[in-house]
Amino acid sequence: MTRAPHMPPPIEEKWPAVVLVRPQMGENIGAAARVLLNFGLASLRLVEPRDRWPNPKAAVVAAGADQLLENARVEWRFEDAVADATLVVAATARPRDMEKPVWGPREAAGKILAAVRAGERPAVVFGPEAAGLENEEIARADAIMTYPVNPGFPSLNLANSVAVFAFAYGEARQEGDVPAWFRDALSPPATQAELEGLFAHLERELERGRFFYPPDKTPLMKRNLRAPLLRAHLTQQEVQTLRGVIKALTIGRGGRKKEEG
Amino acid sequence: MTRAPHMPPPIEEKWPAVVLVRPQMGENIGAAARVLLNFGLASLRLVEPRDRWPNPKAAVVAAGADQLLENARVEWRFEDAVADATLVVAATARPRDMEKPVWGPREAAGKILAAVRAGERPAVVFGPEAAGLENEEIARADAIMTYPVNPGFPSLNLANSVAVFAFAYGEARQEGDVPAWFRDALSPPATQAELEGLFAHLERELERGRFFYPPDKTPLMKRNLRAPLLRAHLTQQEVQTLRGVIKALTIGRGGRKKEEG
Repeated sequence: MTRAPHMPPPIEEKWPAVVLVRPQMGENIGAAARVLLNFGLASLRLVEPRDRWPNPKAAVVAAGADQLLENARVEWRFEDAVADATLVVAATARPRDMEKPVWGPREAAGKILAAVRAGERPAVVFGPEAAGLENEEIARADAIMTYPVNPGFPSLNLANSVAVFAFAYGEARQEGDVPAWFRDALSPPATQAELEGLFAHLERELERGRFFYPPDKTPLMKRNLRAPLLRAHLTQQEVQTLRGVIKALTIGRGGRKKEEG
Repeated sequence: MTRAPHMPPPIEEKWPAVVLVRPQMGENIGAAARVLLNFGLASLRLVEPRDRWPNPKAAVVAAGADQLLENARVEWRFEDAVADATLVVAATARPRDMEKPVWGPREAAGKILAAVRAGERPAVVFGPEAAGLENEEIARADAIMTYPVNPGFPSLNLANSVAVFAFAYGEARQEGDVPAWFRDALSPPATQAELEGLFAHLERELERGRFFYPPDKTPLMKRNLRAPLLRAHLTQQEVQTLRGVIKALTIGRGGRKKEEG
């Protein structure tokens, strides 16, 4: 199952990064690593793996993709794992209450490949085996990748789910013409961290304006605010512009500013 | 991981049959069963499984696709497992010395689906984990299905290999009605007039905040503000939300309000 002597060195592409969030079974992590490398992808990140890491069960199942496991970046917070990404795609069933692009695997692979070729840093995010991604995590994504599954038996094994994306990506790479990405790279895309800075700034000022009411609706209201801004796939320059907009809109606003520092 | 009470009954198509030849690990058989049912395929055949059958390890990993395992036909000879098939497709790396059609997964899925719809009985054959199919077995196939793998790391895990085909088949079945666009029509898209209302509101408030400076840059700055908001393809609801945002941000802003009326 490992490399035979006559084989060429494996393709090992750094982007897209594939992020497994709270994976439970070491075997699934290993199987995911193997199938990623089967299709030339070599960047694995883990958020809060359940078991101790490194995990010997993962190494056994990786069957030669050990290097990929050794290089896997481990983070304890979702946002740290995608902080440097410029395009975040969440693998999940289609959520009902979020306005985001929904792509099949082939469409997602095409967009992600085009993004990589344009110098972007896309990340594809998979949730844990049983529960899947949380709404808060999906809310941070630019787009959703969903599979054409059997509605009566929709839940894929984690490694198989990664396999479907990895295959679609390998196929897209082999295809002659990749759909053009929509941005002409006038300005580099904003990173997830820059977007978070924008959202935090906006939310802080909106709290001062008592925008979030009633309190129990606040998380939903914040998600609904993020959705269109994520969809716009902002550039760094545009994030700066929008932060300038917030400053201009709040300038001279009296009263509570000093209290809140 | 199993079926939730609200789910519809699973799709369970009898053809194509998927044949695992001399599979070694019960876990791989179970994982293959699960991913077949994930994509609506319900006909599994085993040729000479290494371990005793039924295999409890397979049942654990099948995670609800038990029926598929229970119904699996077990044969001791390859030719018996494909005797009733009218089209046999062998999953293997491309062999050098056989003149057969070689299909990628998507092409294979399309041909197999067309065969099923024409009343044929296709079978897709996967070899054992380590060694793959023997030449004699490949020779019996009508066509070869091969994957666009990393030449330096080509060997897929058996269940992942089945997953790639099952996905390609599910995709072929759905083709034509795959969701192309992202919105579930929760809220209708904003009209041009609604967008203009939003932009006018924003620009008015930004002028009050002296955002547009120097004056000769104003038209460009306004265009740069519109670009991301247009890209986001806002819904009516989102336009309302953003107008609420502008109000909340400007609330209590002192000074120039009265002057400008």
